Amino acid sequence: MVEIQTVGGGNQAMNTPIRKGKVYLMGAGPGNPELLTVQAAQILKTAEVVLHDHLVPQEILDLIPAWTQVRNVGKRCGQAGIAQEQIHALLIAAAREGKQVVRLKGGDPLLFGRVGEEMEALARAGVEFEVIPGVTSAMGAAAAAKIPLTDRRYASKVVFLSHHTAGNVSPEWDDVALKDATYAVYMPGKNYGEIATKLMEGGLDAVTPCVIVANATQAEQQVHRTTLQELALEERLPAPSLLIIGEVAKPLPAAEKEKDNSGWETPAKKSELVLDLGETQKDRESQYSRTAKAGSD
Amino acid sequence: MVEIQTVGGGNQAMNTPIRKGKVYLMGAGPGNPELLTVQAAQILKTAEVVLHDHLVPQEILDLIPAWTQVRNVGKRCGQAGIAQEQIHALLIAAAREGKQVVRLKGGDPLLFGRVGEEMEALARAGVEFEVIPGVTSAMGAAAAAKIPLTDRRYASKVVFLSHHTAGNVSPEWDDVALKDATYAVYMPGKNYGEIATKLMEGGLDAVTPCVIVANATQAEQQVHRTTLQELALEERLPAPSLLIIGEVAKPLPAAEKEKDNSGWETPAKKSELVLDLGETQKDRESQYSRTAKAGSD
Repeated sequence: MVEIQTVGGGNQAMNTPIRKGKVYLMGAGPGNPELLTVQAAQILKTAEVVLHDHLVPQEILDLIPAWTQVRNVGKRCGQAGIAQEQIHALLIAAAREGKQVVRLKGGDPLLFGRVGEEMEALARAGVEFEVIPGVTSAMGAAAAAKIPLTDRRYASKVVFLSHHTAGNVSPEWDDVALKDATYAVYMPGKNYGEIATKLMEGGLDAVTPCVIVANATQAEQQVHRTTLQELALEERLPAPSLLIIGEVAKPLPAAEKEKDNSGWETPAKKSELVLDLGETQKDRESQYSRTAKAGSD
Repeated sequence: MVEIQTVGGGNQAMNTPIRKGKVYLMGAGPGNPELLTVQAAQILKTAEVVLHDHLVPQEILDLIPAWTQVRNVGKRCGQAGIAQEQIHALLIAAAREGKQVVRLKGGDPLLFGRVGEEMEALARAGVEFEVIPGVTSAMGAAAAAKIPLTDRRYASKVVFLSHHTAGNVSPEWDDVALKDATYAVYMPGKNYGEIATKLMEGGLDAVTPCVIVANATQAEQQVHRTTLQELALEERLPAPSLLIIGEVAKPLPAAEKEKDNSGWETPAKKSELVLDLGETQKDRESQYSRTAKAGSD
C-alpha cells in the first residue's frame, strides 16, 4: 500500500525518497466489527492516522493498532465539534507528511456525511484519495429487523433520508411521499411524530408499518415495531437509530406447523430437489456422510 | 455455528442427535471480493450449500471451498431461470437436512431481489435464518466514481430504484422526481433515454449530471460521465451497471497548484494541527521516525 517516490529537482532532494501519503474515506459499517469489509479491516490495521466520527463503536476502534494516531473528529448531538475546514486541513497535512490516513465514518462514507466537501478539499489539494464503501446503516437495521427494503409486491423503490440536515433544520419533506416506496430515515431524532405527520399528509396510510432499530447489529440492538399513526407515541430509542417505514416492514408470518407452504408437498419431492442441487453432489456425497457422522459421535 | 440438538420423542430418536440447519441470506457486495464483509467471508468458507444469483462474480465463488454444493439459481436477462418457489423449496429442504445454507446475492440481500418472498417461505416453514447485510451496488458505484450520494449543499435524500421490476415492466416512475434528491438506478437496462425523459418531465434540469458505472469495484470497472439530456445517446455499458443522477454527480475540482484551499495558509499552521492530532503523538514519534527511515533504505 505504501509507495516510495523520489522527489525530483535538486541533487539533494534526489537522495530523499519520500513515502506518498494517501487518504482512505472509509465506511465502518453499521456497528458490528464483523460487518467491516475485508478491505476496510485490512486498511485499518495498517493506517498511520485515523480520524473518526463520533458514532464509530469502540469495538471497531479497538481493531486499530496501538501505534496509530487516532482522533475523534465527530460531532455529538448538540455539541460543537471540530470545524469541517479543520478536518480537511488535518487530512491534507497528514497525507502530505506521507502518511496513510483513514477518515472513518459509520455506515457508508458517501451517505449523510460531509464526505463531498472532504473529497473536494482533497482534490483541490492534489492529495490522492480512495473511497472504501461500507454497509450502510439502513441495511444493518433492515437485516436486524428482517425487512426487505424492496419487494415486487409492495415497494419498488427506497428513499434514504435524514431527519436532520447538517444545520439541524428539517429538509424538504413536503414532496417526499411516493407511491410504492419504502422510507429509511437516518438520525430520526426525537421527532418521530413530525416524520409521521409529513408522510401521512403526503398520502401514506395511517396503518403503514414502521420499525425503529437502535444499535443495529450490535449487542445492545433493539427493534420496535409500530405503525405510522402510533409512531409519535413510540419510546425514543438511543442513537444510533434508524426508522424504516413501509408495507415491507410488516412482521413475517408465523411458522406453519402442519402445512408446508413451500409448494412441494411430499418429502420424496424435496429430496429429489436437493439431489438436483449440483451435478457434482453424487461424488461429494461420501464426504457429507462423514461430516454428518462426525457430528453424531 | 453448527448446533447439535437431540430429537425428542421415542427412545430410538433420543440416540440420534441431528445438526440444526440454518439459512444465511447474504450479500456478496458490489463485486470486488475484498468488499465482502468479514462475516460474509467467514460464513462462505464454512457453508455446505450455496445458492447464488447470476451476477455474483467468479472471483467470489472461488472463495467457496471445493466440498460445498454450489448452484447458480439466478436469472440471466431474457432467460427463464429456476422458479422462485423452487428456490424456496431448495433452501428449506437443505436446511431441514441440517445443512448450513447460504443464499448469496450481489450487493445487499434486501434490495431489489426476492428475499422478501424467501424470508416469508423460510418463516412459514419454521426454518432458522439470518440476514447478513452487504455493501449495496450503489455504494460500490458511488465509491468508484467518487460521488457523495448526499451533500448538504445539493441533495438531502437518495432514491434507490430499479428500471426493471421482476416482470420486466417499468415501475411507477411518474411521481419520482423529488426536489433535492440523488437517484441511484439499479439495472438501468437499455432505456437510459426513457429514464431521462421521466425525470426531466418530473422537473429535473436537463443539465443534471449523470454517471454510469459498470462492473463497479471490479477489474473491468467503467465510469462514464454525462448529463440527463445526453443520457439517451450514451453508450450502453455491460451489466452489472448502475446509473447515478443528481447534482452530486458533477466532477470533482482540479488540483490547485498554487493556492491551498483548505483554509490554512501557512505551513506552520499545518504542522501545529498535525501535532494536535493526538495527545499521545509525542511518545509515538520515535516509532514513526523508524518507519520512515526503514522506508528510505
